[in-house]
Amino acid sequence: MAEKSTQPSEGRSRIERLRFSFSDLGIDALVVSNLPDILYLCGFSGSAGLLLVEHSRSTLFTDSRYTFQARAEVSEARVSIVKHGPLAAVGSALRAMRGRTRVGYAASHLTVEQKKLLEGYSGGRVRWVPDGNVVAKLRCVKDAGELSRMKGAALAISEVFGTTLPLIRPGVTELDLAAEIEYAMRQQGASGPAFETIVASGPRTAWAHARPTAKPFSKNELVLIDCGAILHAYCSDLTRTVFLGRPPKKVRKMYQAVLDAQEAAKQAIRPGVKAGDVDRAARVALKLYGMAAFFTHSLGHGLGLEVHEMPRLGRGVGTLLQEGMVITVEPGVYIEGLGGIRIEDDVVVTANGAVDLTTASREFFEL
Amino acid sequence: MAEKSTQPSEGRSRIERLRFSFSDLGIDALVVSNLPDILYLCGFSGSAGLLLVEHSRSTLFTDSRYTFQARAEVSEARVSIVKHGPLAAVGSALRAMRGRTRVGYAASHLTVEQKKLLEGYSGGRVRWVPDGNVVAKLRCVKDAGELSRMKGAALAISEVFGTTLPLIRPGVTELDLAAEIEYAMRQQGASGPAFETIVASGPRTAWAHARPTAKPFSKNELVLIDCGAILHAYCSDLTRTVFLGRPPKKVRKMYQAVLDAQEAAKQAIRPGVKAGDVDRAARVALKLYGMAAFFTHSLGHGLGLEVHEMPRLGRGVGTLLQEGMVITVEPGVYIEGLGGIRIEDDVVVTANGAVDLTTASREFFEL
Repeated sequence: MAEKSTQPSEGRSRIERLRFSFSDLGIDALVVSNLPDILYLCGFSGSAGLLLVEHSRSTLFTDSRYTFQARAEVSEARVSIVKHGPLAAVGSALRAMRGRTRVGYAASHLTVEQKKLLEGYSGGRVRWVPDGNVVAKLRCVKDAGELSRMKGAALAISEVFGTTLPLIRPGVTELDLAAEIEYAMRQQGASGPAFETIVASGPRTAWAHARPTAKPFSKNELVLIDCGAILHAYCSDLTRTVFLGRPPKKVRKMYQAVLDAQEAAKQAIRPGVKAGDVDRAARVALKLYGMAAFFTHSLGHGLGLEVHEMPRLGRGVGTLLQEGMVITVEPGVYIEGLGGIRIEDDVVVTANGAVDLTTASREFFEL
Repeated sequence: MAEKSTQPSEGRSRIERLRFSFSDLGIDALVVSNLPDILYLCGFSGSAGLLLVEHSRSTLFTDSRYTFQARAEVSEARVSIVKHGPLAAVGSALRAMRGRTRVGYAASHLTVEQKKLLEGYSGGRVRWVPDGNVVAKLRCVKDAGELSRMKGAALAISEVFGTTLPLIRPGVTELDLAAEIEYAMRQQGASGPAFETIVASGPRTAWAHARPTAKPFSKNELVLIDCGAILHAYCSDLTRTVFLGRPPKKVRKMYQAVLDAQEAAKQAIRPGVKAGDVDRAARVALKLYGMAAFFTHSLGHGLGLEVHEMPRLGRGVGTLLQEGMVITVEPGVYIEGLGGIRIEDDVVVTANGAVDLTTASREFFEL
């Protein structure tokens, strides 16, 4: 099964590496509540559970729906099937620990209500410490096994773009094309789309995150496709924009501007560079076309078990890129009434700079 | 577009009805952060934003990716496009309010980090009040327009089951079937699956929430399908279990037990009955077969814009059913090594009891 292959295979286990940060954070234990973090650390792919990592042991708490699945998937942690919810079980486990305990938790994932419940169950001796996204930071640098899976997911979505390109013609609706794209993902071995496939046409391409509608494609309009596949639990994310007919000069110029911006950003990528500087490289390139003001979102984001991960590539972000990070590079230009153009690739940061994982042509297709 | 049709069409607007609970909660304003709640209240279907509901006005705060979309979709609230994130913008708006202000927030959705940021941005004069899931409570009783859309979504997924049934044969993999099911949803007009389609076969059917794998179906095994479609923004959720070949006596008995349990639960449904009593009706029926111990999850859940909504139908839940609630009824029996059987329908609570929205046959198909 795909899920099992996400377990750490090389060197020290992920949970062991996580424990290295316990002393920095000054914690004795960590409550992991974000499901992709749990999948990453112990292999469990169920949709309910908490992982408690202590110095000398780890326990996955989940409920009876997942009894057999947890046994089959989890090797790095003990499995505890609980009756009254994982929060109560983790709380009791913490209460049973001796002395004052400092416990890390994910402030960016745990809800106010969950935190309050945990506090109640664990009693007054626990000192709660925000975990500073420690698991997300581990996750953003991919190991060789992950990179191989991400390459597979990126290749699959590139193939999908190639096979669905001939289907883009007047009369076909946005929803039709989205259906064909997601079906083609499955044919490529995907377990499903990494996010709701975006297909927009005409002026709706100016909506950066448009959901597909029953609108049919017409002659002489832009079609924007933003899609991603999950393969062996890892996500890809690809955007291409094409034109039905012969694009007017202004639209050609927009396309060239976005392509230049993407190339400038890719050239700026290397280990040690600030994420914000890569974002700026794209904006500088757009400025030469007088189009910087129409680039209304961030340049990109990390990619992995989730479609949005650390690091974020946006204005002024100080995160330093590291070898092994996988990020999207997706500048766009959106002009109300006219439409929008976005070009997005997934790249891995290497010692020699950005290397494309997605392989779909960046040519401005006229269909 | 589908999204627009979710806006309130009959009588008082949803935001007006929401304001009725302000005095009960003792609040002057409510910060709505759960995206489906925002969609429900003001029609915005984007994936980032906050809605601030005050006594005399409402404001949707979102970012520039959604400028055009928000303008097109939102009529019940002002739209404010913000530069530094919706949390900062809501905080400033609250800071600008006069005197001490009591502000409701969703403790079950807002993360600890978001809450802390909001507190910082809004200053010391705000008194924060958990909202007691006030929007979820509004949402659990569906109006006529919603019921009509939910009927459509339930009918579509029932048709999908019918059309994909002939595809279940030895050699076809779980992933293949999941792909065909999701493609068929699109053919029925769905914008996508309501959740990751579950297809499990053989002993894996005992995993209540199994993800489909590359395992091919074999002769003489169970196949369990749990799938749902989103149509005009509303979800359906259907489970059927079939057998490849002639099922052994024990498996037949399991199926009959689950079917009886489901029927008993449906019979118990009417306005004013406790959710927990409906769950118990199913367990009592299973006990007659000596199978109550193998029913390892709750009986069902509310359904609407999200696939899991209030009310939960589980042991001891005191929520009273109301006319207009849409819930799933999905007992199951899971025996390790042998497999699992689950039968799930979506029903609406009416004055005359449960009325099925899903129409797929509950016959034990031998394929």
